[in-house]
Amino acid sequence: MLLPSQVKICEVAPRDGFQAEAEWIPTEQKVHIIRQLATTGIQSLEITSFVHPKAIPQLKDAAEVVEQSQDLTDIKFRALVPNVKGAERAINVGIKKLKLMLSATDSHSLSNANSKVVEAQNHHATTIEFAQKNNVQVGGSISVAFGCPYEGRVPIDRLMSIVDRYNKFGVYEVSLADTTGMADPIQVYETLGALKTMFPTTTFSMHFHNTRGMALANVYAALQQGIVHFDSSIAGLGGCPYAPGASGNVASEDLVHMLHQMGIGTGINLDQMIAVAKDTKEILGHDGGSYMLQAGPCSALHLKPKGQEKVEK
Amino acid sequence: MLLPSQVKICEVAPRDGFQAEAEWIPTEQKVHIIRQLATTGIQSLEITSFVHPKAIPQLKDAAEVVEQSQDLTDIKFRALVPNVKGAERAINVGIKKLKLMLSATDSHSLSNANSKVVEAQNHHATTIEFAQKNNVQVGGSISVAFGCPYEGRVPIDRLMSIVDRYNKFGVYEVSLADTTGMADPIQVYETLGALKTMFPTTTFSMHFHNTRGMALANVYAALQQGIVHFDSSIAGLGGCPYAPGASGNVASEDLVHMLHQMGIGTGINLDQMIAVAKDTKEILGHDGGSYMLQAGPCSALHLKPKGQEKVEK
Repeated sequence: MLLPSQVKICEVAPRDGFQAEAEWIPTEQKVHIIRQLATTGIQSLEITSFVHPKAIPQLKDAAEVVEQSQDLTDIKFRALVPNVKGAERAINVGIKKLKLMLSATDSHSLSNANSKVVEAQNHHATTIEFAQKNNVQVGGSISVAFGCPYEGRVPIDRLMSIVDRYNKFGVYEVSLADTTGMADPIQVYETLGALKTMFPTTTFSMHFHNTRGMALANVYAALQQGIVHFDSSIAGLGGCPYAPGASGNVASEDLVHMLHQMGIGTGINLDQMIAVAKDTKEILGHDGGSYMLQAGPCSALHLKPKGQEKVEK
Repeated sequence: MLLPSQVKICEVAPRDGFQAEAEWIPTEQKVHIIRQLATTGIQSLEITSFVHPKAIPQLKDAAEVVEQSQDLTDIKFRALVPNVKGAERAINVGIKKLKLMLSATDSHSLSNANSKVVEAQNHHATTIEFAQKNNVQVGGSISVAFGCPYEGRVPIDRLMSIVDRYNKFGVYEVSLADTTGMADPIQVYETLGALKTMFPTTTFSMHFHNTRGMALANVYAALQQGIVHFDSSIAGLGGCPYAPGASGNVASEDLVHMLHQMGIGTGINLDQMIAVAKDTKEILGHDGGSYMLQAGPCSALHLKPKGQEKVEK
């Protein structure tokens, strides 16, 4: 079986994780976690979202967080923006890559962005034009791309029409988000097969939540379609609004662990990442579902019986 | 991608789950859970283990449990036995299928069965002969087949020599157990590819623990090698002795949910299985890691925003 030998992981806890936290995280703690993440070897970070402070008060310090992280020049930052206003705020503090928000279904779009899919897309045109004028890269995203908590399974045709519209706007990077963990590996494999055939010049990245335990199976299915871009979140931060206590984003340390076990490189130091996950969990008082924090990596062997010496990795 | 359209699941909570419980489960509760499991449509059940009561006191009522479940004739029972003494006890209460215990590594075998692998295999000869005389089926198993908590990754050669020995004893069904959740999907895919080529007349079944979150990914990899026999445990019962609180066996309800989402049949009623998982969790006071108990199945849709009517599956 031919799989990619190297993948690129984008850490999303500072956006998707933090926004799900009920308790205010002081700016200095946000920046501390970002600086800790920088020690793991990550190359890409979704640092925040420039949304209206009333919509997501937790991220109202987006500008300060970016400003206080400017010296981390080894990491490529991207920020989520809902509209041209958000893009302006992001670009003003030096963000060079924006990610657009869009839902696959009208029900989710109405709930998340207060407009239907087609209306949200019309707004994108202005945001993209503004970004292009400022020489800032733009990627697209599709939330609830595989399943919508209101409407169920999303037909591939829907995704095709959304990717097509992104392309028409000049956007050739699209993140497919399984926002509430409804994708299964066959669906991922077949959907990606169809999308890659239809849009050979578009780069797809995968954003899996582990709400129903299928995230790593879905990663494996995506790898089988040659996908090399994955989002994940330290300590599995990021919730599922419909099931309190349920797992959120796939944990970065669990993803990196599986990839390394499979012989796939990430450029990330797993032990350091587990240490940062532990630290992050201590700071926030909880994790969002992390196997590494419970069981540790396969490399951490145990004392042999009969007092034989400890076998180290 | 061509996957099996139908798989066979063996429920193992009454053996692998119960034996990991610290608090004594009264016989009537054990039988109650088994009777509940029988309502889900399961066809196969690892009902107990006939080990020495001092080794696993929790299963000292093995005979009573089997006797009180005899009327569940739609389910094929099997029992784990460590030796001919256990086989005798099992056969005396009417068990028609035995599963033999064996570890892939000497370290684990010494710790688990107080003998090296080759010594344990020599004992098997007597047990198998006894079973054959009594017209009772015998299956083999390999614990820590993919990774050993003392020795690390298990080479495929080791598995080949064990399967070969089983075959020489006339045993052509072998369960590969990832006892502490160390397998990754590439390893599963490649191992099964090699074993199936070398032993085309042997039926392999998979027993995955979800200790490091990879169980469902490993199921998917095994399906891609045409495997149709899987073990799982209601409510994810069954622990990892090296990491208290870590996930145990892959939960039956999570496995069935993923398979059904993928369009693969199991003959099991998922909603009923989730209800039994909930009941079992209430009886024992905890689960062993179950996504269905936290988040529910994909089919359980939510109220649309703006008070639109609830969309049912």
